[in-house]
Amino acid sequence: MTAEIFPKVKTIDLRKKHIGPSCKVFFSHDPIKIVRAKGQYMYDENGVRYLDCINNVAHVGHSHPMVVKAGAEQMELLNTNSRFLHDNLVQYAQRLQATLPEKLSVCYFVNSGSEANDLALRLAWEYTGHKDVITLDNAYHGHVSSLINISPYKFHQLANAEQSKSVHVALSPDLYRGNYRQDHPDPATAYADDVNNLIQKAHEKGHKVAAFIAESLQSCGGQVIPPAGYFQKVAQHVHRAGGLFIADEVQVGFGRVGTHFWAFQLQGEDFVPDIVTMGKPIGNGHPMSCVVTTREVAEAFKNSGMEYFNTFGGNPVSCAIGLAVLDVIEKEDLQGNALRVGGYLTRLLEQQKEKHPLVGDIRGRGLFVGAELVRDRVKLTPATAEAQDIIYKLKEQHILLSADGPHRNVLKFKPPMCFSEEDADMVVEKIDQILTVSETTSFFLLSIIQNTCSVMSL
Amino acid sequence: MTAEIFPKVKTIDLRKKHIGPSCKVFFSHDPIKIVRAKGQYMYDENGVRYLDCINNVAHVGHSHPMVVKAGAEQMELLNTNSRFLHDNLVQYAQRLQATLPEKLSVCYFVNSGSEANDLALRLAWEYTGHKDVITLDNAYHGHVSSLINISPYKFHQLANAEQSKSVHVALSPDLYRGNYRQDHPDPATAYADDVNNLIQKAHEKGHKVAAFIAESLQSCGGQVIPPAGYFQKVAQHVHRAGGLFIADEVQVGFGRVGTHFWAFQLQGEDFVPDIVTMGKPIGNGHPMSCVVTTREVAEAFKNSGMEYFNTFGGNPVSCAIGLAVLDVIEKEDLQGNALRVGGYLTRLLEQQKEKHPLVGDIRGRGLFVGAELVRDRVKLTPATAEAQDIIYKLKEQHILLSADGPHRNVLKFKPPMCFSEEDADMVVEKIDQILTVSETTSFFLLSIIQNTCSVMSL
Repeated sequence: MTAEIFPKVKTIDLRKKHIGPSCKVFFSHDPIKIVRAKGQYMYDENGVRYLDCINNVAHVGHSHPMVVKAGAEQMELLNTNSRFLHDNLVQYAQRLQATLPEKLSVCYFVNSGSEANDLALRLAWEYTGHKDVITLDNAYHGHVSSLINISPYKFHQLANAEQSKSVHVALSPDLYRGNYRQDHPDPATAYADDVNNLIQKAHEKGHKVAAFIAESLQSCGGQVIPPAGYFQKVAQHVHRAGGLFIADEVQVGFGRVGTHFWAFQLQGEDFVPDIVTMGKPIGNGHPMSCVVTTREVAEAFKNSGMEYFNTFGGNPVSCAIGLAVLDVIEKEDLQGNALRVGGYLTRLLEQQKEKHPLVGDIRGRGLFVGAELVRDRVKLTPATAEAQDIIYKLKEQHILLSADGPHRNVLKFKPPMCFSEEDADMVVEKIDQILTVSETTSFFLLSIIQNTCSVMSL
Repeated sequence: MTAEIFPKVKTIDLRKKHIGPSCKVFFSHDPIKIVRAKGQYMYDENGVRYLDCINNVAHVGHSHPMVVKAGAEQMELLNTNSRFLHDNLVQYAQRLQATLPEKLSVCYFVNSGSEANDLALRLAWEYTGHKDVITLDNAYHGHVSSLINISPYKFHQLANAEQSKSVHVALSPDLYRGNYRQDHPDPATAYADDVNNLIQKAHEKGHKVAAFIAESLQSCGGQVIPPAGYFQKVAQHVHRAGGLFIADEVQVGFGRVGTHFWAFQLQGEDFVPDIVTMGKPIGNGHPMSCVVTTREVAEAFKNSGMEYFNTFGGNPVSCAIGLAVLDVIEKEDLQGNALRVGGYLTRLLEQQKEKHPLVGDIRGRGLFVGAELVRDRVKLTPATAEAQDIIYKLKEQHILLSADGPHRNVLKFKPPMCFSEEDADMVVEKIDQILTVSETTSFFLLSIIQNTCSVMSL
C-alpha cells in the first residue's frame, strides 16, 4: 500500500471540492498530511516526525500492533451484528464492567461518543419520564442534534443560537476562572447549589429534570477539574428531583487520569453515576463507544416497549479491538505511566508558570493537563492570540499541541498514554524557548496590536 | 484466535447479565451463535452452515478478503481523524461522487446510518431555516433521538408515544396495501398529493417544512417500492415550500437494486435528491457512513458558523475499507449479479405466488425482494403468525430469513450481493416445502386458533 496517492496540493484541492467546508483541518494556513504513525509519533509524507501531544483517541499509541492484530484477525473471521450470540461481546462487557462500580452492570455498545451520549439521554428520559437536562457551561457532548442542544461549546458558535427551553446551563466548576475559585471556602457546595437553583427554576416553570450531564473532567471546556465532592452534591440534588447523573467519560476515561481508571472516581469512592458514557480511547481509533448503566435504568428502558438495535454496535471486530485495548493498558501499565509522566509533565509546566508571567494556571490529573495562558494574572485576560502563536510555532518544530476552552487560551495536553518523560521534556523545553524569545521580542507588542485592531474594527 | 471462548449457555447467561435487555437477538427462544462467516454463509460454533438471506451489511460477502486486507493494512499504517490531510479521504469522496449525479458533490463522513440521517436533518434545518419534517408511515431512519421522532416504525412501538408537532407522517406509497394501489390510475400523483396536503396543513399552523425524508425503497416498512415519478412530484411540492428532499439509501444503496447504483435512480434520470445518506453496506460491516449534498447546502451549513467535527468519521481505515468495497462491487460485477440473481429469485417467488394462496405479493428490484403473506387475497389479512412460522422453520433448516413491515408479514430478502441462483433455488424450495406441508396439515388451523385466542383475550 502506497502511503501517498496525490501530491499535497492535489489532496488540498480535492478536499475543498468534495469534503464539507464545515470540516476544518488543523493549521488551516498550512495543513499537515500524515501518512503513518506509531506510538506517540506521526509522520508526514516526507517522513518528518511529529510528537503527538493531543490525540486522546490513539490511547495506547498509534497503530499499536496488538490492537491491529486483534482487529485484523477478527475481521478475517467474522464481523456481524449483535442479533447473533458472540463471545467477544459478552466477554468485553464483562471486562468493562469489572473496571466499574458493581451497580453499573448493563452495557449498550454503539459507534461514537455522540451515539453514546444521545442514548444516555434516551435512557434518562425513559427512566424518569422527565424532559429537562442540566449541562455545564462550555460543555461539549457531541455532534448529533440532541447533543448540540446540550453543548454550549457548540451552540454558542451559532449566529442565531436559540437555546432549547428544556436545557439549563450550570456554572462550569472552574476553580481558576469560574464564579467560585481557589480562595472560596467551599466551591464544591457553591457550584452544586447553582445546579440546585436551576432545578428549582425548572420546577417553577412546571418542568422536570431528567438528567444532569457532565464530563468527569471538562475537556473542550478548558481542561477544568471540578472540586472533589461536587459530583456527590450535584447527584443528591438531581436524585431528589427524580433525575439521573450522567458522567461523560468519552474524552477522559480508560486510565488517563493515572490514579483511577475512570475520571469520575477522582471525586471519591462514595460517588457512582447512574450512567457512564465512553468513547474516543475505547478502540484506539476504531469507531466504537459504550453506555453503561444500572439494571433499574436498563429495565425501565426495555419496558418502554421499544427495541434498541444498533447495526454496527458491539460487532465482534469492535469488541476484539476493545478487549485488546484493555489488555495493552494493563500489560504496559499505561495507567501507571499516565500517573508518572503526567505528574512529571505537570511539574515541568509548574516551573514554566514560575518563569513566565503568561502562564497563569497549570492543572492536571495524569496525562490530562491544561496550561491556561493569561495576559494579566489578576484580571485573567485570556492570552488567546499568544496561545495560537505557540501552537503554530510548536508545529514548525514538529510538535502537535492544541489550545481550547471558551477563550481558546488553554494549552491542552492529552497525548497517547505511552507518552514519555523525554517527550514531556521536549515539548516543555520548546514552549520555554518560545516564551523566552517572545518576552524579549515583539510577541506581546504584536498581540497588543492585533487586539487593538480587533477592538477598532468593532 | 479461538472462535469460541464460552459454552453457549454461558454466553447467553453473560448476555442477560451485561447487555441491555432492549437489544434483542434473532430467534430469542433458541438464538444462534455465529463464530465465522464467508460470502453468503455463516457458521455456528459446531460448524453448521447457515445461508444468509438477510444481511445487507455484509454487502460484498462476509469477511471479503480484499476488504479485510485493505482494512488491516491501513490499520497498521495509520488511523487518525480528518483534521490531518489524507489521500484515502479525498480519493474515497471522489470515487463516491463519481457514482452520483454531478450536483451531489460534497461529502461528510460519519459512523452510522443514524449519524448520517441526523446530520442530513441538521443540514436541512440550517439551509432552510425551517423546522418541520415530513416522513413516510412505517419509516425507520435510525436510533438517535432526532430519528426516533421521524420513525413511525419505532415510535409506534412506544406505549406512551407522543408525536412531535414538527413531524408529519405521509402515506407510505405502497401499491399493494396502501391507500392507492395497482388499480389506481396515477398512484404517484395521488401519494405525492398527500405530501402536499401535509405541507399545506403545516403552513396553516404557521409551520415551515425543512425536509421530506424517505428511503428510496422502504425496507423495515415492508419492502415497499414507490411508483416511478413519485419522488419527482414530492420534490416539486417540497421545493416549492422551501424544503429539501433527503433520500435515505442506508439500506438500499450500492448497487443492490441491480439496474442502478442508487435506488433513487429507479425513479428516473430527472430526479436528483438534495441530500443522500448512505450506511450499512458502505463498509461491509465496518462502522462508517456518509452524507452527500450539494455545494449550496454545504455552504449554508458552513455559514451557520458552527464547525463540524466527527472523531472517527472519514478516518483512513474507514476510507480504505470503503474504497475496497467499491472495488469489489466493480471487479466482481456485484451490481450485475444483483440484477441477474435478484430477477431469478423474484421469478421463483412469483411461481410460489401462483402455487400458494398465502403468498399475496412479490415485489423486488435486484436483490431487494419482499414476499408479502396474507390469509385472504381480497381483504389482505396479514399472515403474521405464518410468516414467523416460516422464518423459524427455515432457521431449523439453516436458512436465515426475516419478516418485516408494519404487520411483520413480509418475508424480506436482502442477502449479501454474492448470493447465487443456487442459493435462490435452495431458499425458495424450502419455502415451497414448508408451505406445502402447512397447507396439508395443521398450519392454518393453528394460526386460526391463535388468532381466535388473541381476539377472545381482548
